[in-house]
Amino acid sequence: MYGHREAANFTYLGLYALQHRGQESSGIVSSDGQNFYVEKGMGLVSDIFTKKTIRCLRGNKAIGHNRYSTSGDSHFRNVQPLTVNFALGNLAVAHNGNLLNASILRSELEAYGSIFQSDSDTEVVIHLMAHSKGDTLLERLIEALFLMRGAYSLVLLSDHDLIAVRDPYGFRPLCLGKWKDAWVVASESCAFDLIGAEFIRAVEPGELIVFNDKGMTSHHPFAVPEKPAQCVFEYVYFSRPDSKIFGNHVVYPIRKALGRQLAKEAHVPADVVIPVPDSGVPAALGYAEGSGIPFEIGLTRNHYIGRTFIEPEQSIRHFGVKLKLNTVPDVLKGQRVVVVDDSIVRGTTSRKIVKLIRNAGAREIHMRISSPPTIAPCFYGIDTPTQKELIGSNHSIEEIRKYVTADSLQYLSLEGMLNAVPGCNDHYCHACFTEQYPIPFTKAEERQLGLFDGHSANR
Amino acid sequence: MYGHREAANFTYLGLYALQHRGQESSGIVSSDGQNFYVEKGMGLVSDIFTKKTIRCLRGNKAIGHNRYSTSGDSHFRNVQPLTVNFALGNLAVAHNGNLLNASILRSELEAYGSIFQSDSDTEVVIHLMAHSKGDTLLERLIEALFLMRGAYSLVLLSDHDLIAVRDPYGFRPLCLGKWKDAWVVASESCAFDLIGAEFIRAVEPGELIVFNDKGMTSHHPFAVPEKPAQCVFEYVYFSRPDSKIFGNHVVYPIRKALGRQLAKEAHVPADVVIPVPDSGVPAALGYAEGSGIPFEIGLTRNHYIGRTFIEPEQSIRHFGVKLKLNTVPDVLKGQRVVVVDDSIVRGTTSRKIVKLIRNAGAREIHMRISSPPTIAPCFYGIDTPTQKELIGSNHSIEEIRKYVTADSLQYLSLEGMLNAVPGCNDHYCHACFTEQYPIPFTKAEERQLGLFDGHSANR
Amino acid sequence: MYGHREAANFTYLGLYALQHRGQESSGIVSSDGQNFYVEKGMGLVSDIFTKKTIRCLRGNKAIGHNRYSTSGDSHFRNVQPLTVNFALGNLAVAHNGNLLNASILRSELEAYGSIFQSDSDTEVVIHLMAHSKGDTLLERLIEALFLMRGAYSLVLLSDHDLIAVRDPYGFRPLCLGKWKDAWVVASESCAFDLIGAEFIRAVEPGELIVFNDKGMTSHHPFAVPEKPAQCVFEYVYFSRPDSKIFGNHVVYPIRKALGRQLAKEAHVPADVVIPVPDSGVPAALGYAEGSGIPFEIGLTRNHYIGRTFIEPEQSIRHFGVKLKLNTVPDVLKGQRVVVVDDSIVRGTTSRKIVKLIRNAGAREIHMRISSPPTIAPCFYGIDTPTQKELIGSNHSIEEIRKYVTADSLQYLSLEGMLNAVPGCNDHYCHACFTEQYPIPFTKAEERQLGLFDGHSANR
Amino acid sequence: MYGHREAANFTYLGLYALQHRGQESSGIVSSDGQNFYVEKGMGLVSDIFTKKTIRCLRGNKAIGHNRYSTSGDSHFRNVQPLTVNFALGNLAVAHNGNLLNASILRSELEAYGSIFQSDSDTEVVIHLMAHSKGDTLLERLIEALFLMRGAYSLVLLSDHDLIAVRDPYGFRPLCLGKWKDAWVVASESCAFDLIGAEFIRAVEPGELIVFNDKGMTSHHPFAVPEKPAQCVFEYVYFSRPDSKIFGNHVVYPIRKALGRQLAKEAHVPADVVIPVPDSGVPAALGYAEGSGIPFEIGLTRNHYIGRTFIEPEQSIRHFGVKLKLNTVPDVLKGQRVVVVDDSIVRGTTSRKIVKLIRNAGAREIHMRISSPPTIAPCFYGIDTPTQKELIGSNHSIEEIRKYVTADSLQYLSLEGMLNAVPGCNDHYCHACFTEQYPIPFTKAEERQLGLFDGHSANR
Repeated sequence: MYGHREAANFTYLGLYALQHRGQESSGIVSSDGQNFYVEKGMGLVSDIFTKKTIRCLRGNKAIGHNRYSTSGDSHFRNVQPLTVNFALGNLAVAHNGNLLNASILRSELEAYGSIFQSDSDTEVVIHLMAHSKGDTLLERLIEALFLMRGAYSLVLLSDHDLIAVRDPYGFRPLCLGKWKDAWVVASESCAFDLIGAEFIRAVEPGELIVFNDKGMTSHHPFAVPEKPAQCVFEYVYFSRPDSKIFGNHVVYPIRKALGRQLAKEAHVPADVVIPVPDSGVPAALGYAEGSGIPFEIGLTRNHYIGRTFIEPEQSIRHFGVKLKLNTVPDVLKGQRVVVVDDSIVRGTTSRKIVKLIRNAGAREIHMRISSPPTIAPCFYGIDTPTQKELIGSNHSIEEIRKYVTADSLQYLSLEGMLNAVPGCNDHYCHACFTEQYPIPFTKAEERQLGLFDGHSANR
Repeated sequence: MYGHREAANFTYLGLYALQHRGQESSGIVSSDGQNFYVEKGMGLVSDIFTKKTIRCLRGNKAIGHNRYSTSGDSHFRNVQPLTVNFALGNLAVAHNGNLLNASILRSELEAYGSIFQSDSDTEVVIHLMAHSKGDTLLERLIEALFLMRGAYSLVLLSDHDLIAVRDPYGFRPLCLGKWKDAWVVASESCAFDLIGAEFIRAVEPGELIVFNDKGMTSHHPFAVPEKPAQCVFEYVYFSRPDSKIFGNHVVYPIRKALGRQLAKEAHVPADVVIPVPDSGVPAALGYAEGSGIPFEIGLTRNHYIGRTFIEPEQSIRHFGVKLKLNTVPDVLKGQRVVVVDDSIVRGTTSRKIVKLIRNAGAREIHMRISSPPTIAPCFYGIDTPTQKELIGSNHSIEEIRKYVTADSLQYLSLEGMLNAVPGCNDHYCHACFTEQYPIPFTKAEERQLGLFDGHSANR
Repeated sequence: MYGHREAANFTYLGLYALQHRGQESSGIVSSDGQNFYVEKGMGLVSDIFTKKTIRCLRGNKAIGHNRYSTSGDSHFRNVQPLTVNFALGNLAVAHNGNLLNASILRSELEAYGSIFQSDSDTEVVIHLMAHSKGDTLLERLIEALFLMRGAYSLVLLSDHDLIAVRDPYGFRPLCLGKWKDAWVVASESCAFDLIGAEFIRAVEPGELIVFNDKGMTSHHPFAVPEKPAQCVFEYVYFSRPDSKIFGNHVVYPIRKALGRQLAKEAHVPADVVIPVPDSGVPAALGYAEGSGIPFEIGLTRNHYIGRTFIEPEQSIRHFGVKLKLNTVPDVLKGQRVVVVDDSIVRGTTSRKIVKLIRNAGAREIHMRISSPPTIAPCFYGIDTPTQKELIGSNHSIEEIRKYVTADSLQYLSLEGMLNAVPGCNDHYCHACFTEQYPIPFTKAEERQLGLFDGHSANR
Repeated sequence: MYGHREAANFTYLGLYALQHRGQESSGIVSSDGQNFYVEKGMGLVSDIFTKKTIRCLRGNKAIGHNRYSTSGDSHFRNVQPLTVNFALGNLAVAHNGNLLNASILRSELEAYGSIFQSDSDTEVVIHLMAHSKGDTLLERLIEALFLMRGAYSLVLLSDHDLIAVRDPYGFRPLCLGKWKDAWVVASESCAFDLIGAEFIRAVEPGELIVFNDKGMTSHHPFAVPEKPAQCVFEYVYFSRPDSKIFGNHVVYPIRKALGRQLAKEAHVPADVVIPVPDSGVPAALGYAEGSGIPFEIGLTRNHYIGRTFIEPEQSIRHFGVKLKLNTVPDVLKGQRVVVVDDSIVRGTTSRKIVKLIRNAGAREIHMRISSPPTIAPCFYGIDTPTQKELIGSNHSIEEIRKYVTADSLQYLSLEGMLNAVPGCNDHYCHACFTEQYPIPFTKAEERQLGLFDGHSANR
């Protein structure tokens, strides 16, 4: 947020609304034009910040970040925003996304004498800016951006400016809003809803916006614009259903449309449609609507989730999944059940869910997935396991069905998915479903990401 | 749990499954026949216990408790189970419910030299047992029970016995289960589901069960059995939808039936039915089913809830409710909306919800409540505000409608509710809806509970 | 302190000055006439209290306590002052000393239905008062005192009174002072020095003083006054050298006199006199003065002491003692050294000290002790080990000398000690040196304290 | 320590023995040749480390540091050893001393793109090494040392080497020892005494010692040796009395010699000589010896010191000093008292001490200081206040006497001091007493340190 004397407090509420995007750690940095004020911690937003610490974050501009690690270990030193003091003064950076050439750039910088504080690829941005000979922060940032390959929605804070920038492909969302005279940017519009800010528009792919005491100015530093490659998985799973992302499109009706399309492609006679809560609910409602089969709550979810659970040595069947989910026997007993989920990653959870439903007395279990099979890792900011661990990458759908012990299993088709999401079909990245990565890898990146030796990125 | 060397670990999981019944504090006490092992804390189960602390809770029997305060302040000294060392050895007690004559008994005991450690009415049980001249724990307990008036589902742990007892009215639920050779008791069956125990039956109103190395023995110490007065609000709101309580009845289909009945009694032409999540979901599904109006998710709920939120001085509209709920605009814009909730207590939250929906562009808002108006405080273990604060106690339904700014408001009828729940209509307590308290108050209790001067109990 | 609106803050400073009397835990209770305000914790005074917690301890009267455990385990529930709410209102008690018949009284009280919160013998006082039928606090207290046998300097706080009482033998010190219009009582006068209060006099053995809004009144409830039995070990070791105790007598010159007398009784030709710091310093100065041998610092003490030290597996010689003490080689090398300490308990530390001095190159080591051999446990409030562990109880002086590997060892005589301390020789308890316990034990107490089976008290 | 599998544990004990050199924070870094293991914290050694954390510090070499801040604020990021990962691998550095040109070097490094993590001048060493083009760690270190001006006793740890180096002037002490086959270095020999290591010799001014698997090699990288400028204040006050520093000289007899010399220079007829404890004790003993006036303990010191104290609003006379010191009235009443201290900095404490002694009834008070007046700030690692705050820099001795309200005041002469310490008179730095700084300042340093505008260094 730029331009409100309670900027840090609003930023805190924004982080709270965006907690689903990262639960590992959070931080806020604010500036009053002279000093930076920093508060960071491991854990959830509501545990880290207190009235007192928020009050100490002074100044009329602030940036914040919720982290879920895609690169760099889970250490305090990696908690964002990263802050440094360098030749041009104070600088703080928060980054959503993932750089392809981070470790290559890091090695080069270290050879020139740079010393890194963290494992995070975000720190590369800062050192590139420190090494630039540009006179202004903006010049140095643009020089750094030209060297950075990959996905980034960035916010940067200096003593006088707040800068927001989205990579030329626009992998990750970034929205622009207003709160009276103050400007706000956030990954999703639900952050604006909580604080009562107005959604203006998406920050465009390749756009760089500077906020300072001269107002707001938009830049397009990248000469030749790329075709956008916005993450389709944000619609399928990652964003909150009440958010707008990538323009003026709310997620919930899109998820329902995916479910309706799935009902069309993968009909099966059944008695009830149930979702895997909470993420499968909209698609299951769409499926029920499309198929005419009644929607029911057959699985309940326990939301009092802690970090770790203490399992007795005396083992309990389906222990892990039972901590989150329990069946409602009357809904399932003797029924033909369609269970709708958004995706299958390793298959282990799906298998446990099918067994749980079977134990509750279901006669038939038909699993329906509101996206195509996940076959490839994401290098653009979603934390997927290595390719080897993705059950979709090396098993046929029938093999997966057997593994999860369902009576039938069907996925949504790629075409079905792309037709259900708004805008041009070719403005989305769907590499995790197709292995068609929008940015061609260099040889060094392929080596770095382990793409030749059968392993995925070293994360 | 009685009879398993990992009793404390299973108890911990049971508390985790029952977290919805109390989030203020938790505790577990176990016994190996010689020593008691105690672990207690403020906050959620998943924050209080660690692998290490659970391992220290030795022995093959354990009891646990989640507290949400109906009597006694929120202090560590009130965290249950309460443990003492008295003339017959170690004793621990955990109590769900509320005693009517606790402070009267307390004054009498203090006059005889008793010194209380806590504000909790549960401690009265212990002092009554300490003052009894009975030779055995059982004799002393029964002597104490005869003096106690009100609602109690109790578990007690001594060096050699575990005892479970439910008051003669059976206000609060209590279930009996088995885990292989070990016995388990819990407020709701969802605790059994998590640990994989078998649900046997409800502990009956007025039943007292002793577990020790001679096995399990059932007693019925109360000479003349009372007519049960089981809390109907457990079905309406309090229990988990996947639980069995008060016998072999699952909550979820009963809640749906309340919604179907509501649709019959209070139909209105509309475009969508939406629940107030999460508790309103089953009734809303029932209402949609009964009315034929499509069910939609028009409000999303944020589950990353902390204790306190730091609101900017610059006030935000509907701040409090927005922390939990946000609207999904496409569902509501231009629509005639039926919004279903389980009850209205003070009316303030309902008012904020209606305004939120109105702001999202709804054309008409029809609020439907799946129980009758709440007009009277509960003295049996549900934490209701004083009668003055209950909007239903001193306002007509039309006045409430105006206050919450809905276009229409309808409640389920008492008959409708009692017909939808299982078993005999007159085996339920519905005092919060009717002021018909099953236990006639003594003069002293009326004074104590403030029933004459227009104030409710001094809580 | 009674009668100052910052009573708790002054009490905190008093506890700080008296930290040497107990380092296990501390607590303060204050009263504003209606409520009690309590703050307690494990550890040192300076770690437990904060500006904020002190400010919350409201009211113009307060009592505090530093605990070092002579009875009761080291648990939070034993931290004093103990506070209860009973038939006459709020009550808090802090106790210096030890009761002989605590467990006997406890068993009797439990048979009457009393439930104890702690293991501490102090709680007996409270239950005796709760069971008394007296109308006033004072009547009940006096009734309780008549049943209590042993050593006690007590302060009690009720909603309206502060009461100080010293047992008829006056085992432990208790001083009376004034701060302008307010009254203060403390174990030693050094607490008065810190807060700038004036020392008035000692509270007399058997005296009970009540402070309330009518002023200060002195009572002598015990009909036949006993001959005092004040703890001589307070002069030898326990009190601070700058304190007055047992009247208008400063400790430091008495300790020097013990050293001078020791020089007279146990002269030896030597080059230097060195103390075991810090407690041996005054006696060593007295010895040097008496003998004409130069005083030197041959051992330095490290005051940055934590709770536990992490010793490498690879063992270090004299590890334990080296954490506290190191030698100054130039002082000891080639010298005949007199090393002065106040007492020998188990002998293990003395043995390590002698070896340390020997390693530093001393030619001869003569150990001199400024009190007689410690041969018997204290039952009146000093934490001595069991008789078996006291090296003086079952070994001759020559055997002890051999064990500690000194070239000579001499103790001060009983007569020498009693002549050096002020007042009548027979007004002191010296049971730890003579086994002459001032209060004849009852059979039950002997059993309880294990005096017949060769073991000392079960502590 | 290099070469012992419990290196971190021994390092921890060494830090414990050297706690007097810094109480703000501590840290240990160990290496097993592959990874670095780090544990740091604010506060005392005994509070920071636990058995578990020490056990996690694996490997056979470790360095540690106690910090008391002379440059850089009191933040966690400044806690030493500083650790980085740079082009040559892992590196950790711990620094005792102060660099004159740290901020000048920092600005230059930042202009080349270096980003600093801390405010500490120690980090400059690391960045200089990172920017060097040398092939080996040793080459890079020597290149860095040539650029560093000021006082430094450094230890560095890399994956394979441990390096110790002392600046060419040898301002701060550094000792070399052996523990069986393992090597140890420490600021003072008392660290060796605790772990049972043998003192070998001082590391020489300008000497650089490398420990690795080829053994120990000594280097003298500085071409022209400087005349040493060892800190005389280490003998006067800073080191522990039982330590050897700057060669084979124990501190205690030197301090006594300072006192004896003071008695010769500044005799006064008196009844008692008392020290300001603890640091004034040896000099007071020397004074008593030299003057023939009896030595007494007239002030006692409370060692239970916490960080902060809560003073009542109702002010207490001499509050601050009373927390540490109390008088022993019998020693002082009616006497002519010589009170010996090591130095006077601001004069405020001395003034309070004199008033305390006067209040205790002393007839005459003669203050004697065992060093010359402190007139100038230290830029070599001792934390002195700015010149303006040093009472000796702008007041005559008579003015100081009046301020502290003593009857007489005398300091030791410079010659007296230099004759009492061992070795050549001109091998010591005494700039704080004479303003004769051994290293001529550059213009930039004078600007940086504020030497022209009447303010001292910006600390």
